[in-house]
Amino acid sequence: MRDRESQTHYRERLREQLISAAGAILCSDGLSALQARRVAADSGCSVGTVYNIFRDIDGLIIAANQRTLSALGERLVTAADAARALPLAGRLMALASAYLDFATENPQRWRAVFEHRLSDGEVVPEYYASDRRRLLGLIAEELVPAIGDASARDDAAYALFSAVHGIVQLSLDEKLETFDVEVCRRRIGFIVENVTSALTGTVAA
Amino acid sequence: MRDRESQTHYRERLREQLISAAGAILCSDGLSALQARRVAADSGCSVGTVYNIFRDIDGLIIAANQRTLSALGERLVTAADAARALPLAGRLMALASAYLDFATENPQRWRAVFEHRLSDGEVVPEYYASDRRRLLGLIAEELVPAIGDASARDDAAYALFSAVHGIVQLSLDEKLETFDVEVCRRRIGFIVENVTSALTGTVAA
Repeated sequence: MRDRESQTHYRERLREQLISAAGAILCSDGLSALQARRVAADSGCSVGTVYNIFRDIDGLIIAANQRTLSALGERLVTAADAARALPLAGRLMALASAYLDFATENPQRWRAVFEHRLSDGEVVPEYYASDRRRLLGLIAEELVPAIGDASARDDAAYALFSAVHGIVQLSLDEKLETFDVEVCRRRIGFIVENVTSALTGTVAA
Repeated sequence: MRDRESQTHYRERLREQLISAAGAILCSDGLSALQARRVAADSGCSVGTVYNIFRDIDGLIIAANQRTLSALGERLVTAADAARALPLAGRLMALASAYLDFATENPQRWRAVFEHRLSDGEVVPEYYASDRRRLLGLIAEELVPAIGDASARDDAAYALFSAVHGIVQLSLDEKLETFDVEVCRRRIGFIVENVTSALTGTVAA
């Protein structure tokens, strides 16, 4: 009979294994293919075990999406560090460009983060919400010299993130034409560079 | 026995009726609820008739989405006309604001336009593609005085549209916080006003 510590350890390892299996499914086939039955089969456990560990499929999806946010966050932090010496437009563009590249390389996983919707009244767990806030915080941080007021700065970070996201998403959806990553990057550049130029112009005045 | 003219007329009326039924389903329950069986039942015809008229469900969805684009187009044209006397930022903001209001008032119908994806290799019919281009053309038209080169102007129109779309979509998805239409409009204003200020600054220089 296992003692409590090894049980906790076992459960933790199984949890990791299920999140990995879910992540692999998201990568290859997207959110609509992520079912408890398939994750259980891929991990050699029962469907009941999946529900036992994650309560419901939403719990598992959120855990898998959180890994995506985490991988994205690493890419963004690396990009921000490499651009440290550039002026504001270059720093913001480095973040936006890293976002575009991550989405291009991981289209299904990236899409799952935005496609997943909780049932009415449900909210994402705090660890997930705070990870998202941290990513927006990377943009806000760059804006500190340009926008003094913290609330206006958070608003601006949200607007810039959503704008870049919209350009990446519509391009990847190929809604209006065939996807071309450099055309997409140029359009992102149009927004980022013009916004920055206006912001820093304001600061300089 | 019906002669050919009344047959064509009958078919045309049925086509309209099926598109209306599909539109009503999109409005109330969204794209995932749009099935040929339900449209047939709502219109008092057989599923075979639906497929006979639209070839497949994608054909019907595209026809219903085209009505949405058309209603959106009317709103945008009205907004552009009313803003005719304003400077560029005001004119672009009028278009963006009308877009936000349309999406807020018709969330499911609006979402269906972007959620619908054709099977690999399929392309939307030319009438649909040209309607989409016409909407982007409304933005490009406003940019004529600010951006001389037609290709750069189309790029800018695409970037601005996608940026505004991204802000509206993430806000309506309530991904990061509860939807507040005025907060959303303020963020759109941040992008539109700063981009315009940079563009017209360039022109003035």
